[in-house]
Amino acid sequence: MYIKYKNSPSITAWASVVGKKESEGPLAHLFDECSEDDYFSKDTWEKAETEMQTRCINHLLHKKGLSVNDINLFMGGDLCNQITSTAFSMRDFGFPFLGLYNACSTMAESMIIASCMVDAGYTDNAIALASSHFCTAERQYRTPLDYGGKRTPTAQWTVTGCGSVLVQSMGKTSFINSAQIGAVVDLGVTDTNNMGAAMAPAAADTIKKYLKNSNTKASDYDLIITGDLGEVGSALLKDLLLKENIVLDNHIDCGMVIYDEEQKVQSGASGCGCSASVIAAKFLPEFEKEKLNNILFIATGALLSPATSMQGESIPCIAHLVNIRSKKETKK
Amino acid sequence: MYIKYKNSPSITAWASVVGKKESEGPLAHLFDECSEDDYFSKDTWEKAETEMQTRCINHLLHKKGLSVNDINLFMGGDLCNQITSTAFSMRDFGFPFLGLYNACSTMAESMIIASCMVDAGYTDNAIALASSHFCTAERQYRTPLDYGGKRTPTAQWTVTGCGSVLVQSMGKTSFINSAQIGAVVDLGVTDTNNMGAAMAPAAADTIKKYLKNSNTKASDYDLIITGDLGEVGSALLKDLLLKENIVLDNHIDCGMVIYDEEQKVQSGASGCGCSASVIAAKFLPEFEKEKLNNILFIATGALLSPATSMQGESIPCIAHLVNIRSKKETKK
Repeated sequence: MYIKYKNSPSITAWASVVGKKESEGPLAHLFDECSEDDYFSKDTWEKAETEMQTRCINHLLHKKGLSVNDINLFMGGDLCNQITSTAFSMRDFGFPFLGLYNACSTMAESMIIASCMVDAGYTDNAIALASSHFCTAERQYRTPLDYGGKRTPTAQWTVTGCGSVLVQSMGKTSFINSAQIGAVVDLGVTDTNNMGAAMAPAAADTIKKYLKNSNTKASDYDLIITGDLGEVGSALLKDLLLKENIVLDNHIDCGMVIYDEEQKVQSGASGCGCSASVIAAKFLPEFEKEKLNNILFIATGALLSPATSMQGESIPCIAHLVNIRSKKETKK
Repeated sequence: MYIKYKNSPSITAWASVVGKKESEGPLAHLFDECSEDDYFSKDTWEKAETEMQTRCINHLLHKKGLSVNDINLFMGGDLCNQITSTAFSMRDFGFPFLGLYNACSTMAESMIIASCMVDAGYTDNAIALASSHFCTAERQYRTPLDYGGKRTPTAQWTVTGCGSVLVQSMGKTSFINSAQIGAVVDLGVTDTNNMGAAMAPAAADTIKKYLKNSNTKASDYDLIITGDLGEVGSALLKDLLLKENIVLDNHIDCGMVIYDEEQKVQSGASGCGCSASVIAAKFLPEFEKEKLNNILFIATGALLSPATSMQGESIPCIAHLVNIRSKKETKK
């Protein structure tokens, strides 16, 4: 479903917190906080992820000089069963809370709904957030951490990271102009170590529909940024769109920029926290300097669970898209 | 957060499908479909829950003479890890999909967001849905089904059921007037066999805030309907509100009406599908006959997971509230 926002809701602040491996990567200098300790001073991985979220929200509030009571609405989620990392961070903040789950597309989903709430005037502000933690995800979806399973070349590394944005009715730099809510696409991929291949068709479907609905071309955008397709998924996305006569030569994937080659993450990064932390740390600040003026942010999610994989099911995927513009572009 | 809808989005259709135990209860004659087979002709419980959702959506479409392509937006969730029952039903329908998770409060959360989307004019229609299945939930949250664990007197029975509503911009009978998005409340209950006690404070908090924000009294409503507090939680809710000088003598809990005493469900029913199927089957039809004109529907959710309980955490809870009115009351 295509959404054209009427009142240009704005992203007025962003924050990101990441773990150790991300702190050793090429974007380390851009995150608000890099923790050398993946436990974030807690005694379980799950509590660590909640603490990472808590710090991320506090950075966001601090940047705008806001207190907890100034926030009217919060939405977001994570990869833990029952999105408990988010539920438990909400216990401490007490924000009105809408829990969301669309796997690694949750950040875009969250930004879309937050923008609707602000654009339509139900609230002046809303926080959108998503996070993932390598250790909570790995043992939940794959194998115990100590097992030391070999990773296939198509595998992606779940980011330990959290990203959040504050959407407000009045802003100066980055505006949410339009969005596309994606539908589930499943071309029958069953290999849970090849999420990029599973998710690429969903990204292609959402981009194609958005370009048609907005009557724009891929080349109209400074960048078309996908969430975590990795190398395999990104190549597939380009192929799929080329078949539709859409040339994607301004594409960048968050999962391919957060780690460098020496970090040995096979096909790239994944997890809700990948696109959430990279959009917040690397791309949103560029709107302030007008280095970016018009982008598409497409986060993709693989809606499987270990139970569905064990039952022989393929992987249903989804992609949500947000169009973000600078003041210059919004005036057009 | 309090929401006053400006354009009275309307619930124009509702549907419900339930399993065997629910088919033997006092509301059996009200559901659109009662399945004697809890497998719904599938070979796993998870696939059964997806099939139950699929049937529920088909009943909804059929009632309005709509086809799959007429639906612009779908949102909802379930209790399975990664809300896979919903993701997999979406694979077949292909609706634009927003996945939600707030445990057993998901139906109210879903109705609130769907109403915002329609009220603000982003879409003419949206489906809101929630489901649960005793067998998928029991083995995921508690013990293997074959284990035959003893149930405590405070335990509640997860409903095998699905409820859905169609929200449209133009309707005739039941209108969504206002809503309250709840915040997480956790008074420290750690007993996962006493969800009612854990959730009652969240319900009390949301009701109290809503009455204040809407400048109304509990006695202004025909009924104040909670989702699945059960006997223990319902008594506690009344006590908590009485301390705030709010007398709740028009209260009914969906978890206390779907089964009767002979069905031996201890403190009552629970699960997203409890409030979703009961609101759709028992209460929404009464607006057509103007037997009900003004109700509050408060679905409550316990945002725990087996992992958080095993780590010694208490149970964070949430409650979302929707105010539904007949044409008569909306005109006032």
